[in-house]
Amino acid sequence: MNPLIKNVEYAVRGQLAIRAEELRQELAEGKEYPFDRIVNCNIGNPQQLNQQPITFFRQVSSLCDNPDLLKKENFSIVSQLYPLDAIQRARSLLASIGSVGSYSHSQGVPAIRHTVAQFIKQRDGYGSDPNHIFLTQGASSGVQTLLSMLTQDSNSGIMIPIPQYPLYSASLALYGATPVPYYLDEETGWSLSVDQLTEVITTARSQGTKVKALVIINPGNPTGQCLSAENMQDIVDFCWKQRIVLLADEVYQTNIYQPKERPFISFKKALMEHSLARDHLELVSFHSISKGMIGECGRRGGYFECVNLDKQVLEQIYKMASVSLCPNLHGQILVDLMCNPPRLGDPSYESYKEEIERIYESLRRRSKKLEKVFNQMEGVSCQPAHGSMYLFPQVTLPPKAIKKANELNMAPDAYYAMAMLEATGVCVVPGSGFGQKDHSWHFRSTFLPEEHLFDEFCNALLRFHQDFIEKYS
Amino acid sequence: MNPLIKNVEYAVRGQLAIRAEELRQELAEGKEYPFDRIVNCNIGNPQQLNQQPITFFRQVSSLCDNPDLLKKENFSIVSQLYPLDAIQRARSLLASIGSVGSYSHSQGVPAIRHTVAQFIKQRDGYGSDPNHIFLTQGASSGVQTLLSMLTQDSNSGIMIPIPQYPLYSASLALYGATPVPYYLDEETGWSLSVDQLTEVITTARSQGTKVKALVIINPGNPTGQCLSAENMQDIVDFCWKQRIVLLADEVYQTNIYQPKERPFISFKKALMEHSLARDHLELVSFHSISKGMIGECGRRGGYFECVNLDKQVLEQIYKMASVSLCPNLHGQILVDLMCNPPRLGDPSYESYKEEIERIYESLRRRSKKLEKVFNQMEGVSCQPAHGSMYLFPQVTLPPKAIKKANELNMAPDAYYAMAMLEATGVCVVPGSGFGQKDHSWHFRSTFLPEEHLFDEFCNALLRFHQDFIEKYS
Repeated sequence: MNPLIKNVEYAVRGQLAIRAEELRQELAEGKEYPFDRIVNCNIGNPQQLNQQPITFFRQVSSLCDNPDLLKKENFSIVSQLYPLDAIQRARSLLASIGSVGSYSHSQGVPAIRHTVAQFIKQRDGYGSDPNHIFLTQGASSGVQTLLSMLTQDSNSGIMIPIPQYPLYSASLALYGATPVPYYLDEETGWSLSVDQLTEVITTARSQGTKVKALVIINPGNPTGQCLSAENMQDIVDFCWKQRIVLLADEVYQTNIYQPKERPFISFKKALMEHSLARDHLELVSFHSISKGMIGECGRRGGYFECVNLDKQVLEQIYKMASVSLCPNLHGQILVDLMCNPPRLGDPSYESYKEEIERIYESLRRRSKKLEKVFNQMEGVSCQPAHGSMYLFPQVTLPPKAIKKANELNMAPDAYYAMAMLEATGVCVVPGSGFGQKDHSWHFRSTFLPEEHLFDEFCNALLRFHQDFIEKYS
Repeated sequence: MNPLIKNVEYAVRGQLAIRAEELRQELAEGKEYPFDRIVNCNIGNPQQLNQQPITFFRQVSSLCDNPDLLKKENFSIVSQLYPLDAIQRARSLLASIGSVGSYSHSQGVPAIRHTVAQFIKQRDGYGSDPNHIFLTQGASSGVQTLLSMLTQDSNSGIMIPIPQYPLYSASLALYGATPVPYYLDEETGWSLSVDQLTEVITTARSQGTKVKALVIINPGNPTGQCLSAENMQDIVDFCWKQRIVLLADEVYQTNIYQPKERPFISFKKALMEHSLARDHLELVSFHSISKGMIGECGRRGGYFECVNLDKQVLEQIYKMASVSLCPNLHGQILVDLMCNPPRLGDPSYESYKEEIERIYESLRRRSKKLEKVFNQMEGVSCQPAHGSMYLFPQVTLPPKAIKKANELNMAPDAYYAMAMLEATGVCVVPGSGFGQKDHSWHFRSTFLPEEHLFDEFCNALLRFHQDFIEKYS
């Protein structure tokens, strides 16, 4: 077998998640545990934890799936179940798609790419070219396409944050390329120092690594920080001067919990406002339907926009997309809806707005509550999340716990997380799965458990932590 | 950029298809051509050419998409639009899935893998383990996963047929591995000689290539042949003796047009009937919702079954699947429906059966008609299709046409196909995109144009060919 495969690690669905599945099955079979359900906080999968889908989106998608409902003879019945704007949108989508059962253009349905371009223009105030947009099966597949194109062998380096979402390290391991890590600074809210970036790239180059690109995850995953406008200008400046590609993972762009102090700014906008780099720096920005208030993870939909990429490179990306034929149409439809939701005056506007705001406010409340809970725990400190769906607290583990973990050949934070799972049914991801400074221990938890169960969830974590510390102190 | 990317070629959506898109746009803008529409025969995309989806499948899928329709208070209205078995199936699918907006198990929803295992058992008469089944985003992504795992560098070889579906050559180029070609014999209906396989593997090994696997596409793509039981036993025997993995691309298993003389037999069944190899030979078999009478290409759904693979290898496949999180749920749902369609006695059984049979009979008629048309053309010979969606005629091109193509730095069959597109609007794929014996020229065409337009389509091809031959003779 390809030995590179063995080097791939993907903790979000690793050992802990596999054990959680076993426990779930055993619970279903009636086996007794100190908890009655598994709570998957290891992955940002909102609808698994009963977040409701956006009604209008599902209405349009289901009409596209069953075009018999759009026939004239069914209108009087169907209009009792569906608002008029959902019917109209489904008709206009099908007019450009044909059938959700057909392969589309490999890059995605042209009309949907046009919608995405309009969305970007409206968001940033700068135009976007539909031909430079590629629809994807979730952001992950787009990231993998770009990383595989930018790297060649272990001489190719990609700068990635530590901590990072392990898609990056896993993909680089698979392609045999070299991760060039830079560290986010926990004490200052996981901030990013451009001086450090310069140091890191200089060292990597002096060691013979050809650094191809910088990955930025903004808002951060697992860290939740959101970059400031000034910081972003410095990052653009850095990439431009170093002549490297900027890969901006912006899938959490609407999960922003301090919108006044720290609003989301896209790297496209930051680039357009950098007068020297705007026509030169190569930027690829990724977005997804899986996150935000939408949470349609299971559809696998997303897009990336390419800025300042050579025509020949775009042709190569198109070719690679065409080998996979096309992204699935249900994902593409959701991208269209995400980028062009109901507008003021549309029949579905009020309910759409209410649903989005309800989910948003609830996520923000839960984020704050869980942050407080973590900071109450002995030896735990947790930075607030400006954005994303995660908190990434640091845990000071007792030496006895670390010793025990070492005996079991486990990372100490993996040992802690496994103990948490066995005691509470809550599955988180150990910090070692994302990378962290040596001898510091973390875990990543979503704040997605349902609000009416949230206190129970928090209390279980508090009790577990106290017991764990007592046991090992 | 990774230089391997530049080596990738994928003719099915190559230069011809790009030109066809341009023509389609120009037609839409009112530009005049000798034809009034583009007919995409370059890709097996039935619904693009107005093949109707299976009603029951779309009903279930749309109910899963909009679970509000399953609420009790809507039953009296919804039951006017949906048959009871569709409502029941959607309920039971959602009970195991949760929401189509959630990530599922990385390997696919366990209940759907169970359905697939039952389907395989029913088809072959031998059991199947749901834990050895991986749901995928179309067969292509499964093939790519396996090829990337089996190969490492240019010393790793994979035996592929010539002609072949270019997914194989494209993926091997991307992974930097070596294709080890074996030739199908056109004169004997694209038959496969196991003696030749032995010669080919011996030569490849003597040149230092580590041959890892044999790819068989059955029924063939682009060639349409269907293997006999005896031939399959010899192939199983060959792989077992040579200790290589057998990768069986069986996506056209229901597109069988001579079911009595040449029925489809799965390699799983062939393996189980080989008393020596059955517990040893590693087999991976791929299937898809995109082909057959279903043609749900745009959903990107499929599965592969692993037989006799080591537990550790299965764990690695699981890990790679988990980096991509999960196959999209709409594709997974269609896999469930394909493997467990309405049964005798169900409300939807009769209409389901009628739809499948109507599409099947029409495909068979069109296959025969197009084969006849090709064999009428001067200098063209075409083997009948036992199965699949394609014909792959050989064209004797006049020396002047070959000379002209050489001047333009085009493969002669690409030149021929481009002339066909410009004259008729029909887009096919030149044989050079699939591989062929030196100095022979072919093209692949689907027989998917609608039946009421089929004579017009055939006549356009006949006229074009005659004009082309006259022009260059």
